[in-house]
Amino acid sequence: MVDRWYNIAADLPAVLAPPKDPDEGESRIGLLTRILPSALIDQEFSAERWISIPEEVRDAYRRVGRPTPLLRAEGLERALGTGVRIYYKYEGVLPVGSHKLNTALAQAYYAKADGAVEVATETGAGQWGMAVSLAAALFGLRAVVFMTRSSYNSKRQRLTFMRTYGATVYPSPSEVTEAGRRHYRPDHPGSLGIAISEAVEYVLSGEKRRYLPGSVLEFVLMHQTVIGLEAVRQLPEEPDAAVACVGGGSNFAGFTYPMIGMKLRGEGFDKTRFVAVEAEAAPKLTKGEYKYDFPDAVGVLPMIKMYTLGHDYVPPPVHAAGLRYHGAAPSLSLLRKLGIVEPLSYPQEEVMKAAVLFARTEGIVPAPESAHAIRAVLDLAKKLPRGSVIAFNLSGHGLLDSDAYEKFL
Amino acid sequence: MVDRWYNIAADLPAVLAPPKDPDEGESRIGLLTRILPSALIDQEFSAERWISIPEEVRDAYRRVGRPTPLLRAEGLERALGTGVRIYYKYEGVLPVGSHKLNTALAQAYYAKADGAVEVATETGAGQWGMAVSLAAALFGLRAVVFMTRSSYNSKRQRLTFMRTYGATVYPSPSEVTEAGRRHYRPDHPGSLGIAISEAVEYVLSGEKRRYLPGSVLEFVLMHQTVIGLEAVRQLPEEPDAAVACVGGGSNFAGFTYPMIGMKLRGEGFDKTRFVAVEAEAAPKLTKGEYKYDFPDAVGVLPMIKMYTLGHDYVPPPVHAAGLRYHGAAPSLSLLRKLGIVEPLSYPQEEVMKAAVLFARTEGIVPAPESAHAIRAVLDLAKKLPRGSVIAFNLSGHGLLDSDAYEKFL
Repeated sequence: MVDRWYNIAADLPAVLAPPKDPDEGESRIGLLTRILPSALIDQEFSAERWISIPEEVRDAYRRVGRPTPLLRAEGLERALGTGVRIYYKYEGVLPVGSHKLNTALAQAYYAKADGAVEVATETGAGQWGMAVSLAAALFGLRAVVFMTRSSYNSKRQRLTFMRTYGATVYPSPSEVTEAGRRHYRPDHPGSLGIAISEAVEYVLSGEKRRYLPGSVLEFVLMHQTVIGLEAVRQLPEEPDAAVACVGGGSNFAGFTYPMIGMKLRGEGFDKTRFVAVEAEAAPKLTKGEYKYDFPDAVGVLPMIKMYTLGHDYVPPPVHAAGLRYHGAAPSLSLLRKLGIVEPLSYPQEEVMKAAVLFARTEGIVPAPESAHAIRAVLDLAKKLPRGSVIAFNLSGHGLLDSDAYEKFL
Repeated sequence: MVDRWYNIAADLPAVLAPPKDPDEGESRIGLLTRILPSALIDQEFSAERWISIPEEVRDAYRRVGRPTPLLRAEGLERALGTGVRIYYKYEGVLPVGSHKLNTALAQAYYAKADGAVEVATETGAGQWGMAVSLAAALFGLRAVVFMTRSSYNSKRQRLTFMRTYGATVYPSPSEVTEAGRRHYRPDHPGSLGIAISEAVEYVLSGEKRRYLPGSVLEFVLMHQTVIGLEAVRQLPEEPDAAVACVGGGSNFAGFTYPMIGMKLRGEGFDKTRFVAVEAEAAPKLTKGEYKYDFPDAVGVLPMIKMYTLGHDYVPPPVHAAGLRYHGAAPSLSLLRKLGIVEPLSYPQEEVMKAAVLFARTEGIVPAPESAHAIRAVLDLAKKLPRGSVIAFNLSGHGLLDSDAYEKFL
């Protein structure tokens, strides 16, 4: 069991641009310090390479199924017949079905350590909301989730499981907050931006509440490095390519940063390429601009320097809701800028085809998000010489995404 | 990795009544020999204690995630505060989310060994259909599934995943078979009996086809003993009670038979009680009669001696569709008759309450079927003295049963 997280800030070959406030309005950085668990603020700005995982969090990791398995994709290899060996780390064994739980457990622990009794967050399709709901339950906290109303009405499964875990879930815009009431009408589809504003306001308007963010912030990426730290121990050989999909970057960072760190320090993985796969519907790394922008659509949070399509960019609706995000985390954006990470993007149809091939050869129905990585692996397996090795992160299963498969088939 | 299945026939303290033909009509036993993979007929009547698991099946077990974990229910123990230690074996890590895959893989292998290119079966809620679809895909066989029309229309998720795995799924009654056409109307809800008749007819009407049954037959129970054989190795202490739910008996047998066998042979588990938990909606072990009856509603298969509510018994619709079965497998029925297995039954409302408590304390949302075992564990934990030990089988997760949770909450 891994006992510390890896902080890539210690090894980056260039200075990571810090979050900053916009020229106008109140300080967003000041706001962050009032709504986040305090330890997370320290982690966000830490330059320490290794951060100890508190014993209670390690214990929670163990109870939910860590370390997760590293598997050889023998069936897929046979189907491809390219003589390339393929390994994947599988985060879908976690009870919520995705990697999101790794940081939710850490954040819930730090909220409790601050004396909080309640945590709040926003969610779209519900992966993050489900992770927070379970983490809160396991640490004895109440959870309040603002879920975009269109998802609240159409994604009943994850909504139901958030409630099964004991969370209170409001469709956003809701009538519970000022921010919600400003937009409220029964048929408003909602947006992640409004939902974030509601969660933040909810936290500020009561005692002993903390806000838990699901991606983009550096501490979120760092918590996810348990994935890659385990993978480094489990991989029988160093891959020629390490692949993961990118929404905000936490799944990609979680899997690859420990390897990238070793490469940067000259300790291994020197021949490994790092491939970040995004949805063609939200191609920030392949087509975005590198600049300061808000990580949320309404500008509640501090600006960060990143590849972005603009914080008001609205991606077309695709199955991989978790990849419909306009920007990439600061450290990931910097690594892409420096050429250490290579971006790729794929259209949905090709991705779902790869997902079905994977299900039939490996047995696991992949989440549409994770299937982006699989799509890239198929390409790489054809292009790389025989005997090459590919490793990728299967960040979640698709058992709660049957609508995506039904539409595709 | 376990390399042989356990056949309890070798250790039963009384003779197991064999399947028999009804007084009228064609031989059902003769029919079985024409539709099943041939090795399975041998296994059904074998008196050997140990049956080697073919290397290809062991390999498939490994690839889908065996051995599955044995976990300590620390969160549930704390919530109960009764000083009882609780362990559970978790089959939900298998990609289809339940134990059904253990026998589906074995049966698909034996079908292929017979030279079959196609397998057919029936399914209600879809757990068995999903397991057969994946097993067929992994062994390079085509799968045809007859799914009761009411489930076909309402259980879209498992239907979609069967297709994702490549299966052809017909709503039953279908227009594909004579048996289906006899009952066909677009609004006929279908029944498992009709669906079985369709699958059997489909197999008989073509070349290189085999029929795969999901429960009740003794070889099905035997394949599931991988669960208990692993558990015996993994359990750090012998339990005072071993608990599992009962539909037809394969999940219960899979978990407990290796322990019951050791008890019968005087090799251990001498203080262990074996508790079989059924739905109050289908209480064959608690209220049924011990006699010869058909295992299927229309009498296609041979009669078996079992506790039964009558093969025409129609249980009320409950969330735990997998437990809505009128009989219990012959060996399980005999063990109950002999007092070696104790039956218990619970109503749905109490079971779902236990399921929610388990989700909030352990993180895993249990299948409504498996939650019956959890409900019994709560009772036992209160009744047994402090320091007692309980082990149960969590046969599957409930991520494809959100409708059950939505209705309950």
